[in-house]
Amino acid sequence: MSKQNAFYAQSGGVTAVINASACGVIETARKHGDSIGTVYAGRNGILGALTEELIDTSALSDETVAALRHTPGGAFGSCRYKLKDVETHRAQYERLIEVFKAHNIGYFFYNGGNDSADTCLKIAQLAESIGYPLKAVHVPKTVDNDLPITDNCPGFGSVAKYIAVSTKEAAMDIESMSATSTKVFILEVMGRHAGWIAGAGGLAGEGEGSAPHLIIFPEIPFDRGTVMARIDDCVKKFGYCVIVVSEGARYSDGSFLADAGTTDAFGHKQLGGVAPSLAAMVKEDLGYKYHWAVADYLQRSARHLASATDVEQAYAVGKAAVEFALAGKTSVMPAIMRTSESPYAWEIGEAPLSKIANAEKFMPRDYITPDGFGISDLGRKYFTPLIQGEDYPPYKDGMPVYVKLQHKLVEKKLGDFEP
Amino acid sequence: MSKQNAFYAQSGGVTAVINASACGVIETARKHGDSIGTVYAGRNGILGALTEELIDTSALSDETVAALRHTPGGAFGSCRYKLKDVETHRAQYERLIEVFKAHNIGYFFYNGGNDSADTCLKIAQLAESIGYPLKAVHVPKTVDNDLPITDNCPGFGSVAKYIAVSTKEAAMDIESMSATSTKVFILEVMGRHAGWIAGAGGLAGEGEGSAPHLIIFPEIPFDRGTVMARIDDCVKKFGYCVIVVSEGARYSDGSFLADAGTTDAFGHKQLGGVAPSLAAMVKEDLGYKYHWAVADYLQRSARHLASATDVEQAYAVGKAAVEFALAGKTSVMPAIMRTSESPYAWEIGEAPLSKIANAEKFMPRDYITPDGFGISDLGRKYFTPLIQGEDYPPYKDGMPVYVKLQHKLVEKKLGDFEP
Repeated sequence: MSKQNAFYAQSGGVTAVINASACGVIETARKHGDSIGTVYAGRNGILGALTEELIDTSALSDETVAALRHTPGGAFGSCRYKLKDVETHRAQYERLIEVFKAHNIGYFFYNGGNDSADTCLKIAQLAESIGYPLKAVHVPKTVDNDLPITDNCPGFGSVAKYIAVSTKEAAMDIESMSATSTKVFILEVMGRHAGWIAGAGGLAGEGEGSAPHLIIFPEIPFDRGTVMARIDDCVKKFGYCVIVVSEGARYSDGSFLADAGTTDAFGHKQLGGVAPSLAAMVKEDLGYKYHWAVADYLQRSARHLASATDVEQAYAVGKAAVEFALAGKTSVMPAIMRTSESPYAWEIGEAPLSKIANAEKFMPRDYITPDGFGISDLGRKYFTPLIQGEDYPPYKDGMPVYVKLQHKLVEKKLGDFEP
Repeated sequence: MSKQNAFYAQSGGVTAVINASACGVIETARKHGDSIGTVYAGRNGILGALTEELIDTSALSDETVAALRHTPGGAFGSCRYKLKDVETHRAQYERLIEVFKAHNIGYFFYNGGNDSADTCLKIAQLAESIGYPLKAVHVPKTVDNDLPITDNCPGFGSVAKYIAVSTKEAAMDIESMSATSTKVFILEVMGRHAGWIAGAGGLAGEGEGSAPHLIIFPEIPFDRGTVMARIDDCVKKFGYCVIVVSEGARYSDGSFLADAGTTDAFGHKQLGGVAPSLAAMVKEDLGYKYHWAVADYLQRSARHLASATDVEQAYAVGKAAVEFALAGKTSVMPAIMRTSESPYAWEIGEAPLSKIANAEKFMPRDYITPDGFGISDLGRKYFTPLIQGEDYPPYKDGMPVYVKLQHKLVEKKLGDFEP
C-alpha cells in the first residue's frame, strides 16, 4: 500500500488531556513514517475538513508535539458542530471525501464523544460505499464519561480528581469557619445528564461526617423537602454541610433546578446556575449562611491537577487509534478495559463504532448509596483508580508552560464550501 | 524571666497557607522551650480564649505540626467574631486577661487581617494598662492583600497563583471552543474592596490579545456601556473574550453589581453572583454564548496549587512573631519587606500595630492600565514574584494528604463566660 496522509480533529467540549491524545496520534504516526505521511489536523474540528483548513502538523517540532501531552484546551481548535443526516445532507459527507482525496488522506482520527463517534461511523460507511479507502478510527474523549463499552473516558479522570480535591479543600475551609460563619457550602459541577462528575466529588472523604455530606445527582429526582431536611440534620450534627450538586439536578418531572426560576430574598430572579438556586433554597428554608462555587470550565481545563492515569490513558487511546488504522481496522474505537480491580490494571480493547455512536452510558444506580446522596463502596471502587497519580506540567515564573501552536495551514486545492 | 505559655489563634477567612504560619509559630516556640512552655491554640479563634477552650498543641507530634505547613483551612478553627469596643465592653477584654492569667499565658499570637490586628492591639493595650505582662504579636494573613506596611499578605500569593493559572487554563478551553460555541467566559474572584486578586488574574497572559482581555476592578467604576463595547470589540477581534471580575465590582454610585443582601459578623456585606449578573448583561446586550465560573472558597483553599513563595512567607511570619515576642516586642506585626525587585528578594520587617489596625491598603491606580481593564507593567512587577514556585502537598491514592487535628482541650480553670 502506498503511503497516505492522516487527518485528526478534535470535537465537542475539550478536556485537560485531549491534547495528550493528539500527542499520542502524532507521535505514533511519526514512528510509522513508512506508512503514514503527514498528519493534518482540522482547524476547529471537522469544520476544518469541510472548509479545507488543514493544519500541517509536520511543521511542529518533536518538542512541541511532546508538550501537547501537558497542555489543556484543544490545541487545533474544537467545534460544536454535528454533521447532519447522511441521507438528507449527503453533500457534506461527499465534501469530506473530496478533501480527503485531494490531500491523499487515508486515515481519519476523530477525537470526541458520542456525536463524533456517530460522525466517524457515517464517514467510514460512506467511504466504504463509494470505494474510497479510508480507515476511520474514533478516539474517545469526554469529561462526561458517558461512552459505552470503554470503562471510562479520557478527560474524566482529571475532572474527577479536580472535583475531589477541590471539594476536600473547600470542605476544610468551611469547617474552620463554621462555628461563627458559613454553615453550608455548595459546589456545582458539570454533568448535564449523568452524575459521573458529581459522584467523583464523593472521593473527597469517606465515612460518617466526612464531606461531601450530600451529592445531588441528576439520576435521583430532587425533592426540596428531603434535601433541606438532610442539610439541616447535617449542620446540626457536624456543624456544617458540604454539597456537591450536578448541573443536571432535576425534579421528578424532569425540569432542571437551574431553570426553576428561583428568586432571592429581594425578589430578584436567580440568574441560572443550580448552585445559587440551591443556596437560595437554603437561605429561605433554613436561614443558614452559605457560600457557593461554580467550577464550570475550570474543572475541565485544570491540567495543573491532571490525573496521571488519565493522561496516560488519553495518550494510549491516541496511540492505539493509529495502530488500529495501520492494522487495517476501521469504524472502531480504542476502549479502556479494566482488567483488574485491585491492584487496578487496564488495557486497550477494541469497540465497534456501531455500539458507541449516539449511545449514552448512565451511572449505575448501585454506584449511588441507597439514600441517593452519596457514592456506594462499588462507586468508590470504580472512581478511585481513575484519579491516581499526579502529572504536573512544567512551570516557569510561577506559571505552567503550556504550548500554543502556530496553525500553519496547508494550501487549499479545492473551491470554497459553505458548511 | 520565668517560662510562660503562648496562645495562638486564627481569625477571619482562612487561606491555603494560614496553617503554615501556625506551623512556624509552634515549631519556633518548640525550639525555644527554655522560654516558652506550651502553645495553646484557641478553638475557633479568639472565641476559644473567651470560652477557655484551649487546644493543647503539645499533644501534637512534630510530624503532625510539620504537616500543617501543607494543610489548607484553619486547623484550629477560625472565627468571624470581632471584639466589641474596649470602653463599652471591657468585660470581654478582662475575661481574656483572666484566661491568660489562669493558664500562665505571656505570649499572644493572633493570625488574621485588619480586624484582628485591631483586636490584638487592644488586648496589648489593656494588658499594659493593668500591668499584666503580655507580648502580643499579630501574624498577618489575608487573601485580600489589604494590610498596610507589609508588601503583601501571606495567603494572597497562593490565591493569586490559583486565579492566574485557572484563568490561563479556562482561556485555553474557551479559545478552542470559540469558533462554533462559547464566546465569552467570566471568572468571578474574591476581593470585596480591593482588586488585588482580580489583578493577579492578569498574570495569565501578556500582550495584545492575551487572556484575560478584561479585568473588572472594584477600583474602577463599572459602566455597562463601556464594558459591553469592550467585550464586543474583543470577540470581533480575537474570536472570544475572557473576563476576570472582582466580587467587589461596583457602579459609580458605589452599589455592587451583585448584592446578596446579607452581612457577616463584621457588618461586611456578603457578596457573590457578579459573574451571573455580568453574563446576563452579555446575553441581553450582545447575545453571545457565555460561560461563567465562581471560584469562591476554591480559590483560597487551593493548597494543591500554593505558591512556594507564599508558603515560605507564611511560615516566616509565624516564626518571626515568636522571635519578636521573645525579644520583648509587643503590639507589632512581622511584615514582608521587598528588598529587591529583580531578582526578587524579601526580608521580615517590623510594623507597629497602631499603623495596621483597621487600615486598608488599596491597589495603587498605576498598577492598573490607564483604560482601567488590565494590569500595568508596574502591577505585573508587583504580582509576579508572589506566585513563584510550586509547593505540592504529598498525595496518597490520588488525593492530597492533609492533616486533620484532634483538638485536645486543656482542662478549664475558670467559670463559664458568655461571649
